[in-house]
Amino acid sequence: MAKSIKLSKINPEAPKGFEKEATIKKTKELVTKIGELSEKLYAEKKHNLLIVFQGMDASGKDGVTKNVMLKIPAVVIDAHSFKKPSEEEFAHDFLWRVNQYSPAKGQIKIFIRSHYEDILIQRVHNWIDDKKVKQRMKSINAYETTLAQDNNTTILKFYLHLSHERQLEKLDERLTDPTKQWKHNPADYEESKLWDQYMKCYEYAINESEIPWHIVPSNQRWYRNYFVAQIVHDTLKKLKPEYPLLPHDGKTKS
Amino acid sequence: MAKSIKLSKINPEAPKGFEKEATIKKTKELVTKIGELSEKLYAEKKHNLLIVFQGMDASGKDGVTKNVMLKIPAVVIDAHSFKKPSEEEFAHDFLWRVNQYSPAKGQIKIFIRSHYEDILIQRVHNWIDDKKVKQRMKSINAYETTLAQDNNTTILKFYLHLSHERQLEKLDERLTDPTKQWKHNPADYEESKLWDQYMKCYEYAINESEIPWHIVPSNQRWYRNYFVAQIVHDTLKKLKPEYPLLPHDGKTKS
Repeated sequence: MAKSIKLSKINPEAPKGFEKEATIKKTKELVTKIGELSEKLYAEKKHNLLIVFQGMDASGKDGVTKNVMLKIPAVVIDAHSFKKPSEEEFAHDFLWRVNQYSPAKGQIKIFIRSHYEDILIQRVHNWIDDKKVKQRMKSINAYETTLAQDNNTTILKFYLHLSHERQLEKLDERLTDPTKQWKHNPADYEESKLWDQYMKCYEYAINESEIPWHIVPSNQRWYRNYFVAQIVHDTLKKLKPEYPLLPHDGKTKS
Repeated sequence: MAKSIKLSKINPEAPKGFEKEATIKKTKELVTKIGELSEKLYAEKKHNLLIVFQGMDASGKDGVTKNVMLKIPAVVIDAHSFKKPSEEEFAHDFLWRVNQYSPAKGQIKIFIRSHYEDILIQRVHNWIDDKKVKQRMKSINAYETTLAQDNNTTILKFYLHLSHERQLEKLDERLTDPTKQWKHNPADYEESKLWDQYMKCYEYAINESEIPWHIVPSNQRWYRNYFVAQIVHDTLKKLKPEYPLLPHDGKTKS
């Protein structure tokens, strides 16, 4: 990789000059446009999108999906949240379960967590050794390249970059806010203690990826949503999806 | 690749010194042992096998599967015959449909035709260009490497090597033998005219594969079956599958 990133050097705060209310308004406009563009993508069936969200607990993977993808019709979008693998999934190679959710032409697939977990949580806990990590990184790059080359897939990978302090605040919110208590999991506090190890493993995954990552400053939800919405919007716009038209006489199908 | 094969230089006949009845008897013994070993493989759930059969029409992909895998219990084996891709399959990358049938630990999966068709029939008919062929070959090698490294999969690839003359004889048998008429397809004679192009594409696939192929002399069914049975048997035997035993006191589960 040409450039090597260090997460501790990247600011997780919204940059100066962004005003909250104005940014939320801009995000709403982008979200509407994303919805319109996604319908054309679906009608045209030339391109497709795979959007990967990774980040520590409480970084907002579900939240950003909910807010940014709000206007994409259900027939176009599918969001899959990868949890602990099942016994059947563990009996296969690590890409088996992920591959089943690869996007078809015209689709937008969201991975909330992804194949990267197999070199993150598994590495932090030493369930796999460095040799396996290296092999898997190679497999991941090959898998993503196959999608891009063979099915015209555009892959957007977002790391939701949160400070450790902000994570603990957000985990604590879950203890008090009655609309968030369902998200509370005592194990999240245990994983949070492994913060530095996680950062190292994330840096490896980001630096060794052939298809680049977007590092999303995520300490403020409103800025995080805006950042992602802008990239998704610009990506869709560049694909120039168009409704396929009938041929000139309007009666025969070309 | 270290060695480059030329199919026209390889004899598709049974080698001298093999007597038909004695060979059939030996094959039967191997088939029984394959069945026994496969039960241990399933019980142990450490290893798994992917067996790929490729070859021209009438080369005996179905026949060899039927005869050699006869004693493998249904719960251990799954044979999938890859036909023309569906609309949904075509809307994905070419490995998507194949990946769903990747073996789990303890399983033996048979691919009758496979991901190689995507650089064989598609290349012969110029549905894809050479750049795409090269990309796909790279994707195939990466896919097979992932299975081998990440899931302990042993991949056996067999090219059923038939002479063009013998193919035409066997296609003609389908016109007269009432137990074979259901296999007759006039399109097979059309594909047969593209023999030389197919051989070139097969040679490319075989020579560029990282995991090597077995070239099976297939002009005689009995020798073809023996050849494959021997390799499947020896492969299973080398994996040394064993029934897992209870721990010493026989009461607790280790």
